Amino acid sequence: MKQKLSVIKIGGNLIEDAAGCKKVLDLFSKMDGNKILVHGGGKKATELANQMGVESKMVNGRRITNAETLDIALMVYGGLYSKKIVAKLQSLGTDAIGMSGADANAIRAHKRPKKNVDFGFVGDVDTVNTYGIFKLLQAGFTPIFCALTHDGNGQMLNTNADTIAAEIAIAMSEQFETTLYYCFEKKGVLQDIEDENSVIKHIDSQGYDELLAYGIIADGMLPKMHNCFYALRNNVSKVCVGNTNMLEADNSEYTTLTL
Amino acid sequence: MKQKLSVIKIGGNLIEDAAGCKKVLDLFSKMDGNKILVHGGGKKATELANQMGVESKMVNGRRITNAETLDIALMVYGGLYSKKIVAKLQSLGTDAIGMSGADANAIRAHKRPKKNVDFGFVGDVDTVNTYGIFKLLQAGFTPIFCALTHDGNGQMLNTNADTIAAEIAIAMSEQFETTLYYCFEKKGVLQDIEDENSVIKHIDSQGYDELLAYGIIADGMLPKMHNCFYALRNNVSKVCVGNTNMLEADNSEYTTLTL
Repeated sequence: MKQKLSVIKIGGNLIEDAAGCKKVLDLFSKMDGNKILVHGGGKKATELANQMGVESKMVNGRRITNAETLDIALMVYGGLYSKKIVAKLQSLGTDAIGMSGADANAIRAHKRPKKNVDFGFVGDVDTVNTYGIFKLLQAGFTPIFCALTHDGNGQMLNTNADTIAAEIAIAMSEQFETTLYYCFEKKGVLQDIEDENSVIKHIDSQGYDELLAYGIIADGMLPKMHNCFYALRNNVSKVCVGNTNMLEADNSEYTTLTL
Repeated sequence: MKQKLSVIKIGGNLIEDAAGCKKVLDLFSKMDGNKILVHGGGKKATELANQMGVESKMVNGRRITNAETLDIALMVYGGLYSKKIVAKLQSLGTDAIGMSGADANAIRAHKRPKKNVDFGFVGDVDTVNTYGIFKLLQAGFTPIFCALTHDGNGQMLNTNADTIAAEIAIAMSEQFETTLYYCFEKKGVLQDIEDENSVIKHIDSQGYDELLAYGIIADGMLPKMHNCFYALRNNVSKVCVGNTNMLEADNSEYTTLTL
């Protein structure tokens, strides 16, 4: 039987909120078995850019990563967030190692090709080094990934944290029975967007099609759900969507997605 | 017979100089056997502090690390430098992992006690987790350390890179035959400070005492030499002092120190 692996993605905003950060890392450290954390970006990068006088350029709601904004991502995600999370987890007894995709050659990507827009130093994932990550897990370490990859030629690249979490979960599914957790601010996928307590407990492929058809899944949830089913169709066993309480062992108030 | 291990300390200024950085990482990646890189700080942290409007407070020539300057160290040393070095080393075929003392619980320190001066978040090293570092080396990884430690209670601390290199070399000497390399701008310890080519090839304890008595070792070299002999007296086999050419296999134009 395959060993189990949990891949948990948390947002950067959570890290910037002292109480939220403490809570999620507490819950994460208590989770049994092999686990990997992926943390996204938050407001701090924008704040730092402002302080440094670096302009944040957006095209179609997506940030353009020039050399200066890449440096800011390396500093904030790869340094500040990563080290603070790791220090906190170590204090909780989790033997964490903070990583980018360059460390242990974990995630290789290529610079997104220019089409209408040049996104700059943004990477689309090519390969996840499952053997490298496996060796770390095997040695008892807990990898903590930030949203950075590398191209194998010495160039770091900015990569979406949801994507990184999905790609790691997919790649590791060859060897592990993998559950992917997406933590966000809501309790789960809601039947009624106005009602925080209308969590849909379970969605499968058929249910997903129906929810799409009825417009229940719309706007910001669309890419999230797309990512979830992309992972499921690529051998991830289960995807869970909810707020950080989802990581509590006895909580079932979140959405579980399966094929 | 013990396996060999090389611990190489390079300055942060070297990392900020594109050509110098390329050269030293090239030479480092070609070195045989188990190896660990330790990189120090450079001007970038001060630059960033200025851009952010954070004042660098100095007492007796030593920087005071408040919460804001610690964040800057986490960003610049733990993020920017670390990830750039790791990405470059990966492109050269070295399977590097960028680490602080918190990652893999590698280096624990305690906040330096207040005496006349409160240095703030500055850590004096307590323990090096040799087993954690050994597991990484054993798995084929090359640890790249920045000048940051943690206290085990969730607090990151700033620690001098020369000290970190010495403490790692000392701790690892239980298991390895360890050589510690201090790279700096000069070819080695000079007989005549005015003559770049007056490198003293070998210094032992007796020679060290003589050089001290004659005032050949003075000023900035004093703490450096003190660190070297501290390492030697604590089971490090050999300490080498010189510029980056020292890492070339066929070069002998540097200073070797032994007991």
